[in-house]
Amino acid sequence: MEIIKYPSREEWPLLLTRPALNVSMLFDTVRPVLNEVRAEGDAAVRRYEEKFDNVTLSDLQVSEEEINEAKNLVSDELQQAIRTAKGNIEKFHASQRFTGQKVETTTGVTCWQKAVAIEKVGLYIPGGTAPLFSTVLMLAVPARIAGCKEVVLCTPPDKDGRVHPAILFAAEVAGVNKIFKIGGIQAIAAMAYGTESVPKVYKIFGPGNQYVTAAKQLVSLKDVAIDMPAGPSEVEVIADEKANPDFIAADFLSQAEHGVDSQAILVTTSEYIVDKVVRAIEGQLEKLSRKEITEKSLSHSRIIVLDNEQEVIDFTNQYAPEHLIIQMENYSDVAEKVENAGSVFMGAYTPESAGDYASGTNHTLPTNGYAKAYSGVNLDSFIKKITFQEITSEGIRNLGGAIQTMAANELLDAHRNAVTVRLKTL
Amino acid sequence: MEIIKYPSREEWPLLLTRPALNVSMLFDTVRPVLNEVRAEGDAAVRRYEEKFDNVTLSDLQVSEEEINEAKNLVSDELQQAIRTAKGNIEKFHASQRFTGQKVETTTGVTCWQKAVAIEKVGLYIPGGTAPLFSTVLMLAVPARIAGCKEVVLCTPPDKDGRVHPAILFAAEVAGVNKIFKIGGIQAIAAMAYGTESVPKVYKIFGPGNQYVTAAKQLVSLKDVAIDMPAGPSEVEVIADEKANPDFIAADFLSQAEHGVDSQAILVTTSEYIVDKVVRAIEGQLEKLSRKEITEKSLSHSRIIVLDNEQEVIDFTNQYAPEHLIIQMENYSDVAEKVENAGSVFMGAYTPESAGDYASGTNHTLPTNGYAKAYSGVNLDSFIKKITFQEITSEGIRNLGGAIQTMAANELLDAHRNAVTVRLKTL
Repeated sequence: MEIIKYPSREEWPLLLTRPALNVSMLFDTVRPVLNEVRAEGDAAVRRYEEKFDNVTLSDLQVSEEEINEAKNLVSDELQQAIRTAKGNIEKFHASQRFTGQKVETTTGVTCWQKAVAIEKVGLYIPGGTAPLFSTVLMLAVPARIAGCKEVVLCTPPDKDGRVHPAILFAAEVAGVNKIFKIGGIQAIAAMAYGTESVPKVYKIFGPGNQYVTAAKQLVSLKDVAIDMPAGPSEVEVIADEKANPDFIAADFLSQAEHGVDSQAILVTTSEYIVDKVVRAIEGQLEKLSRKEITEKSLSHSRIIVLDNEQEVIDFTNQYAPEHLIIQMENYSDVAEKVENAGSVFMGAYTPESAGDYASGTNHTLPTNGYAKAYSGVNLDSFIKKITFQEITSEGIRNLGGAIQTMAANELLDAHRNAVTVRLKTL
Repeated sequence: MEIIKYPSREEWPLLLTRPALNVSMLFDTVRPVLNEVRAEGDAAVRRYEEKFDNVTLSDLQVSEEEINEAKNLVSDELQQAIRTAKGNIEKFHASQRFTGQKVETTTGVTCWQKAVAIEKVGLYIPGGTAPLFSTVLMLAVPARIAGCKEVVLCTPPDKDGRVHPAILFAAEVAGVNKIFKIGGIQAIAAMAYGTESVPKVYKIFGPGNQYVTAAKQLVSLKDVAIDMPAGPSEVEVIADEKANPDFIAADFLSQAEHGVDSQAILVTTSEYIVDKVVRAIEGQLEKLSRKEITEKSLSHSRIIVLDNEQEVIDFTNQYAPEHLIIQMENYSDVAEKVENAGSVFMGAYTPESAGDYASGTNHTLPTNGYAKAYSGVNLDSFIKKITFQEITSEGIRNLGGAIQTMAANELLDAHRNAVTVRLKTL
């Protein structure tokens, strides 16, 4: 953990850097797998499941039976927690429903937008040490609320060909239509192109390792939309001298434990709390099961002391953190000034893990500074806004001249003529 | 022009194809230019302006003087038309402003979204035979309404180092901050990375040739957001037997004149109108200045007769046209059933050129079937929706247990601990 006190603004760019991220060097590895799945479908998927997940699968799709069994394997406590989280995610995302309003821009010329769900979406849930059932909820619940007709989920099976019951349970609760035991590049390919078993989808969501990220990037160039570019997860905590060092340390560590490339940053105007926070981090770290990962990620984490609140705000907007936690007395004022962030956590009792799991906001958020241009996943991510317009004969009389003039000046005769032929009949 | 009558659904996939589109083969050509501009800034931009636009530029930025002069070179008629269009685009896009609502998902847990403008955006306006001032309005007006602080525009100059006055006038009316005489790959690079003259932006918008498209794709992988993937422009007209063949022909041709790779499709249940439309197309074509381009593009255009209205709707949703013109008596009913389209034009007096120029809707729309997952450019394109949440001590008491349970089951101790340390203090 690096501690930097009162850096000049010239030194900021270095402090704003993130752990390196460049998946394009993986494109040559990823491309053949994509192409084989595109050409051979399920056969290629099966081959790569053997190769990468060490499993020989008869059925790629999780059976109804397996889903029913899963329920018995998930504790009542976890079932209840998943239902609570699902309820809150549903409430918050349902509040984001969009209704376009009709606007008469010129007499007789009416324009409006209509939200229509993306018909088929694909969700990718990584495997690994922990079952990310929370991500299932974060992606499938809004997809359902948006009205997506087909919600497909791919996740790698374990060596016995099984998917973790908590993932199956969350998928069932959230209303996923079809679950496939497919991981990695081959999962992205299957959803992007479709196979005998897996429907082709129009947009792919979800986190993954660098191969999954590279595969998503490649298929997004031409074949299918994706949620957003991905990078390592990160948190910035802003704190003043009254903030509780234990709370700061806990938020810091809960980011750091995600992975060795995660980044946590504390930005404060109070030198006074620095030592307390460092001690609290050291104390809490000892008790963590993922201590080794967490320590590695702490090695590129930073505590930065700045001169005043304005500097803190400027630094934050330049960093554009995925998660921003504001533990300051005047957290509402500071939050007002945030221009670049994925999700903002306000006040002492609002840990990032609330948004990661159960408060209702989405946890699929822009990393790597992408918050400067991207929103996190929200209901909009699952819809398109189609524009409609209706022009009456009076409308074309009113607006036709302007259209004709502009078309003529862009040297587009036929565009002008489309108005002329209509005006002639009036 | 191909005329296909009553194809079976098995034959549809072929009819749904578009003129080929694969810019990834240009990546190796584009990448060195991007890298040189990234490394050398203005010097590389100047070098490529000499090479590709045959012009030696002293100042890359258009001067205030040039902008003032432009006004005198644009006819009053065109000035008025541009102002009318600008007013309508402003009205429609201003109606899209978003205000998030606060949602208490659990007692003491409040979540909301806030729209914040993307601070810096870059607009690319292609050069070529016609000055695309309409695209300037379509991109700069919503950028301004959204509240983007810096709106940068790049467009290639002519051989004398000038930008068409109508483009400068439209940029001035729409409120562009800085205009640069830079085209092609070097323009995309300059906006993606920044140079001594050109500010780095966070999102790049606008059409362009295949090199520009390839450059946008490459920079979008990591460095900057883009509006959407691009392909050749296209229109689908749906018509019944009462539709006016001259109107259909005019709409058909106004798409075809865009470029040799444009595509126009007429889908109808009425065999009766086919000959009439063909004759009308032939008649109108003769008088067009861009006859040669238009003829080439007609060679991959299609008239398709289907059995019934349901087939027309299914075909349309599978094709997902950029522009959809519905010239049917029951156009409102049919429009209700549209699920995949960029922009829909309803009724006899609503030509595509209205939306291309002046009705108020945006003309930057998803091509190539991307309408299945993408919206056209709209106010959302210029903002991010940041989520905020505030949890009271009561809130964390209510929700803390569910968070702890979920975190423990995902084996994320520190996530659980971030709740535990807080609950301990209550």
